Amino acid sequence: MIYLDNNATTKVDEKVLDVMIPYLQGEYANPSSMYDFAKKPAEALKVAREQVRDFYGAKDVNEIFFTSCGSESANMAIKGALACNKTRKHIITTKVEHPCVLNTYKTFEKQGYDVDYIGVNSEGELNLDELKEKLRKDTALVSVMWANNEVGVINPVEEIAEIVKSNSPETIFFVDGVQAAGKIPMNVKDTMIDMVGVSGHKFHAPKGVGALYVNKGCRIVPLINGGHQERGMRAGTENVPYIAGLGKAAELAKDSLSYESTEVKRLRDKLETGIIRNVFNARLNSTLKDRVPNTSNIGFEYVEGELILLHLSDYGICASSGSACTSGSLEPSHVLRAMGIPFTALHGSIRFSLSRFTKESEVDFVIEKMPVIMDKLTKISPFQDELNKLKLLKGDR
Amino acid sequence: MIYLDNNATTKVDEKVLDVMIPYLQGEYANPSSMYDFAKKPAEALKVAREQVRDFYGAKDVNEIFFTSCGSESANMAIKGALACNKTRKHIITTKVEHPCVLNTYKTFEKQGYDVDYIGVNSEGELNLDELKEKLRKDTALVSVMWANNEVGVINPVEEIAEIVKSNSPETIFFVDGVQAAGKIPMNVKDTMIDMVGVSGHKFHAPKGVGALYVNKGCRIVPLINGGHQERGMRAGTENVPYIAGLGKAAELAKDSLSYESTEVKRLRDKLETGIIRNVFNARLNSTLKDRVPNTSNIGFEYVEGELILLHLSDYGICASSGSACTSGSLEPSHVLRAMGIPFTALHGSIRFSLSRFTKESEVDFVIEKMPVIMDKLTKISPFQDELNKLKLLKGDR
Repeated sequence: MIYLDNNATTKVDEKVLDVMIPYLQGEYANPSSMYDFAKKPAEALKVAREQVRDFYGAKDVNEIFFTSCGSESANMAIKGALACNKTRKHIITTKVEHPCVLNTYKTFEKQGYDVDYIGVNSEGELNLDELKEKLRKDTALVSVMWANNEVGVINPVEEIAEIVKSNSPETIFFVDGVQAAGKIPMNVKDTMIDMVGVSGHKFHAPKGVGALYVNKGCRIVPLINGGHQERGMRAGTENVPYIAGLGKAAELAKDSLSYESTEVKRLRDKLETGIIRNVFNARLNSTLKDRVPNTSNIGFEYVEGELILLHLSDYGICASSGSACTSGSLEPSHVLRAMGIPFTALHGSIRFSLSRFTKESEVDFVIEKMPVIMDKLTKISPFQDELNKLKLLKGDR
Repeated sequence: MIYLDNNATTKVDEKVLDVMIPYLQGEYANPSSMYDFAKKPAEALKVAREQVRDFYGAKDVNEIFFTSCGSESANMAIKGALACNKTRKHIITTKVEHPCVLNTYKTFEKQGYDVDYIGVNSEGELNLDELKEKLRKDTALVSVMWANNEVGVINPVEEIAEIVKSNSPETIFFVDGVQAAGKIPMNVKDTMIDMVGVSGHKFHAPKGVGALYVNKGCRIVPLINGGHQERGMRAGTENVPYIAGLGKAAELAKDSLSYESTEVKRLRDKLETGIIRNVFNARLNSTLKDRVPNTSNIGFEYVEGELILLHLSDYGICASSGSACTSGSLEPSHVLRAMGIPFTALHGSIRFSLSRFTKESEVDFVIEKMPVIMDKLTKISPFQDELNKLKLLKGDR
């Protein structure tokens, strides 16, 4: 099995699992309990909070809140901030956000909010001029993802934060950091960003745990009311094993950032170049320098993405045609559409996402098999004329 | 270590952990992905949903939603139902609900909702006449816990459901089932209850997973918007390991119900009788027949609860003085206050909660040590006259 779908989810690092296991076995006390038996779990939460603070590059552990996933982090941030700022009814976000963010804004549109969706160019770069123009006196929230899950484009969130805050210090700036976490450094203390959400299972912690950074100056109300956990901001007995795992995963991810930006990037570039060289109907959907180092989105013209995935799966290769959260729907990717990817490649676009566990031999195998798969699929494509023209145009590389 | 605080949290059953481990190791695919590698995790969710359906005694697997904890289940139910029924602004609940429920209603009071809190008698029994009287035409929601976490009293939720629905079929009836789950049968399909929330870590699944039963006829909106997971009702990549564990824990808990009602009850009764017999200043805070079989709440007059817990902890005995979610606060229990427990016992009330893993030797050890502890503590109590009167009154049993 060759797993190249690390933007969908990652395997739990063995070192992370090792940290978790004691809290799934003997050390099962409720960390809020008063007796000695509760001390180790309570200490584990403290250690993890410090690790996650360091991962974010935040000033203070009290700016870190543990959640159950990236979607909860985003909902907590967005709903929590808007509830504190009810006189302002304008939101700015982008056309290429993750569904969990876009669908949340749809619920606010129904409640009478005015939501502007900023577009991107053909490389996936955000139109900052459009963003500046849309800023209003009653803008409650600006919400931009740090890195895009489908094409990996990194948005200049530090710069956007300054634009937002110079326009209106009361406007809250939320960053969905799910796909940036563990791939590029996040030094939130050096920025004017108010909130950043992350999801553990995107950087080798398990599925079912996330975090939200909330700058001390930013006020939100809880999404989940109840007990005193997370300083009254997120009720529910703490998921000690996963939080301990999240802390360890954050530490490991931070330590691996240089490996990501060198070795993972080298393998990603090799995969990209290898496929583009060997497959005549392949095109890169983004060539930007400012991409996360692990992600490649390649369009295969005149071929159906689902068919490509099936054939990859037959070789034991896992990749995807967009977000797992929208899989099952036959709609082409909203991200690629916003980028204006030509119709001919839109349906046949495949995302390969690597991790620090990806081996060179795996990349080589995919480079070898991709032309074999595409040979089969182009033969049964109803677009033979177009494919022949493309072949002539590009030459038999 | 003798763990008698199973209403705060429970240890993960080894059989539950065995079911979880593969999904924390090799089987890490995102269950929404299209390739073969995602089939086992997707199948695990299906199996768990059927196990949890059976546990609830629900008709249909589509009535089961997985959440991250009991607090999320309660917030999803309460906020989700009220958002669907915005013309009605009246809520009825009880004075003895869990903090996660009470604190959520406090936020609705601030939003202009009228909330009635029904009282209990000295045994912890709900005043059903008061409940009937408070029902109004604009009652949006009635919310009653199935079993109380502190004293274990079981509320007649089936009967309350009929009262509510005969008054107004549109009024939603939510039951916090966290402390009933795994202790007594829940056959929701034979009732008119709309929603029941449970928390895995109260019945030997890990902390960080829960479920919400929503009757097919009942409409709610999501608390966490985003992807298509849980049929669009709860976004976020599914926590496959914990959900698989929750399913197994539900199956094991259902199979253990008769053991709970016989052997766990026998040990609980032995503990209760043993302490009351050997400790002159001990009194049972509820003697009801309709209590969950594992819980005993004993008041030790003229002694501080925190001191008792410390001395118990020195012997390796874990018990508590109320909900772990309120621990750290010095306020006496809101449940015991609602029951009118005399001031003299209020501060010295201790909850012992057993599980199917509690051994008879452990109960015997506590029965043996409790008089030793109480001997020390009564000697340093500032209420020597009162204690002497009590001793004379009760005799040196």
